[in-house]
Amino acid sequence: MSILVQKFGGTSVADAEKVHRAARRAIRAKLEGYQVVMTVSAMGKTTDQLVALANEINSTPPKREMDMLLTTGEQVSISLMAMAIAAAGHEAISFTGGQIGMLTDAAHTKARIHSIDAKRIHEHLNAGKIVIVAGFQGVTQEGAITTLGRGGSDTTAVALAAALGAEICEIYTDVDGIYSTDPRVVPQARKMAEISYDEMLELASLGAGVMHSRSIEFGKKYNVPIHVRSSLTDSKGTMIVAETKGMEDVVVRGITLKRDLARVVLTSVPNRTGIAADIFARIAKHRVVVDDIIQNVYEHGHGANIGFTTTGADVDEAATICEEIAKDLGIKSIEVDKKVAKVSVVGIGMKTHTGVASKMFGALAAARVNIQNISTSEIVISCVIDEKDGEEALRTLHTAFGLDNNDNHA
Amino acid sequence: MSILVQKFGGTSVADAEKVHRAARRAIRAKLEGYQVVMTVSAMGKTTDQLVALANEINSTPPKREMDMLLTTGEQVSISLMAMAIAAAGHEAISFTGGQIGMLTDAAHTKARIHSIDAKRIHEHLNAGKIVIVAGFQGVTQEGAITTLGRGGSDTTAVALAAALGAEICEIYTDVDGIYSTDPRVVPQARKMAEISYDEMLELASLGAGVMHSRSIEFGKKYNVPIHVRSSLTDSKGTMIVAETKGMEDVVVRGITLKRDLARVVLTSVPNRTGIAADIFARIAKHRVVVDDIIQNVYEHGHGANIGFTTTGADVDEAATICEEIAKDLGIKSIEVDKKVAKVSVVGIGMKTHTGVASKMFGALAAARVNIQNISTSEIVISCVIDEKDGEEALRTLHTAFGLDNNDNHA
Repeated sequence: MSILVQKFGGTSVADAEKVHRAARRAIRAKLEGYQVVMTVSAMGKTTDQLVALANEINSTPPKREMDMLLTTGEQVSISLMAMAIAAAGHEAISFTGGQIGMLTDAAHTKARIHSIDAKRIHEHLNAGKIVIVAGFQGVTQEGAITTLGRGGSDTTAVALAAALGAEICEIYTDVDGIYSTDPRVVPQARKMAEISYDEMLELASLGAGVMHSRSIEFGKKYNVPIHVRSSLTDSKGTMIVAETKGMEDVVVRGITLKRDLARVVLTSVPNRTGIAADIFARIAKHRVVVDDIIQNVYEHGHGANIGFTTTGADVDEAATICEEIAKDLGIKSIEVDKKVAKVSVVGIGMKTHTGVASKMFGALAAARVNIQNISTSEIVISCVIDEKDGEEALRTLHTAFGLDNNDNHA
Repeated sequence: MSILVQKFGGTSVADAEKVHRAARRAIRAKLEGYQVVMTVSAMGKTTDQLVALANEINSTPPKREMDMLLTTGEQVSISLMAMAIAAAGHEAISFTGGQIGMLTDAAHTKARIHSIDAKRIHEHLNAGKIVIVAGFQGVTQEGAITTLGRGGSDTTAVALAAALGAEICEIYTDVDGIYSTDPRVVPQARKMAEISYDEMLELASLGAGVMHSRSIEFGKKYNVPIHVRSSLTDSKGTMIVAETKGMEDVVVRGITLKRDLARVVLTSVPNRTGIAADIFARIAKHRVVVDDIIQNVYEHGHGANIGFTTTGADVDEAATICEEIAKDLGIKSIEVDKKVAKVSVVGIGMKTHTGVASKMFGALAAARVNIQNISTSEIVISCVIDEKDGEEALRTLHTAFGLDNNDNHA
């Protein structure tokens, strides 16, 4: 009998009616012949409320205790889900992470899964029950309760699917799939029928964040097909799968825009070995988030400009740190631009196609969008641009790479 | 080093400020040289809210899932308490029932404790930490989460004190001790410095419910001194201890009034063997709560009146059942009185003193309170009376047995 893992996010279990709806979906899958394992997140805004409660008591709560606190949210959801299934006349049983041996390391608030005791789950599935597992949480070898980081319920679901040999892992959410770009900005955005793990990883990390990155890595590692779909409708969503030959025919699959970035450039940095390490060690010590780093050397390698992007929230601190660094290292000046965005094209087809970069730069130039920084990786090309040009760049590139869905076009 | 167990009820951890206050109390005990173990209940009305949430989803939720749900309340409290202690610069660690091996039977929603793994707690105490244990919850041998029934955190605290060989178990609550009677009705009620386990058991079961009965039984069995005291002040409360010779000098220690009772009498019941068993088996089948049962035989043992008291909530159902029973068994008639109360005098001194009953009946007669039923046990004498006479009876008996505290007398 095939096993199906269904994950319901916080918005999909936000109230009693939604819990019942999710329960009905699991029951239907069971009646279709699947053995069903559900993973659920905390209801609605529960996690945020618990964090606020903790901060009322201690502004820097011990991480172990934070995990003890936050895991109650998912424990509430699993018990209610089991009650909803029982109310519909079917058998269900709920388990905390610890109860099904979701063993993790001891890195509280961002633990990594080591193993899952699948035997216990199989026993209950074979007894005809729908098994409900608390998302987001695990337990160390010593029995301490851990969490996998925000959005970790996705990882729980994919890890369960891998451990149980599930046919598929369904992620139910409030969007109906993965789009070629943000449909709120580009109405012609196209829902993708399928996407590779690598492409999804880039889309997730670039801000089109439907899913937790680590869950995609897990899916890739264990080759778990992931179906991202809406909890409100029955329409098919987007399958995240291993890349296939056919996928490469579409060179660029998605365009993303990351807003609220800032760019800091240290100019005329003496180009000696280890200086970049010095600079970024000092920035990291202050916990400033660094997005991209770009270094150009000039004067036959004697001088360099070192730039990086950071978030709008961190830019002032980053600037202060860089001014100190500049003084200490004899760096001439720093430049700060608080209003930048990053537009990226993503597609595994790039691996085997040429001309993607020049097409991108040409399209942006035609739209009179000035490019500040460029960075590339195997399946992504990103340009840092002025923030005010962000949406125009997104629309331009979406059209230029032939992604527009003309059905959506008014 | 002596161990102190401190239990804080829901009202004593209802908000951040109260959590801090409880934390300070534990820290103070630690600075005084104790090893401190805390047990906490769910905050304020949390448990009621969770029950309401469950009932929204399923009017008869599976008990296993109910336990899964309700135990989150205490888990929230322990983590917040640990954060509060950390905020004050001291070390603390929180544990769920399962994590410290609070093994129970599998009777979900009313489990009984089998054993506690004290070793783990001792390790952390010896490492200088304040150990915080979730009240109300345990775990079966198979790892299922159980609860000990409403008010079960008292039992957790006393059981921990027994398992750890604690010097004392402190129960912090919103009253400052155990009174000779309800101070809201009798302003002269006297706070008792000490009381025996047996007396406390009678007072608890008769409605002066400051503590969970089972926790007192536990305290008696393992001879744990229990100190019931206020979480708001530093004044001494009431010690619950094994009975001492001196205690018997006070013949009657407390007077209780149980309201909202109803009395049902089956008259002229054929007095044959097993008929009472028949009657009460049928009543029990309908889950009607029966308080006291009183049977009188007459006609040289050929006829009998069988009466019982039940709660106001159950009386209509009890009456219906009794009418059916009367028809089936050829019983002449039933009488129902919906407005009765039970007044009781309690004291271990009664074991060795005579004349308590006649003094009680005389005092009630002098106050023109008519007695309907009388029942007695070794340390209790109870009279069922008209509900409207309840408070007058309470005051009369409190004075008659010399319990009035004249300091409180305006």
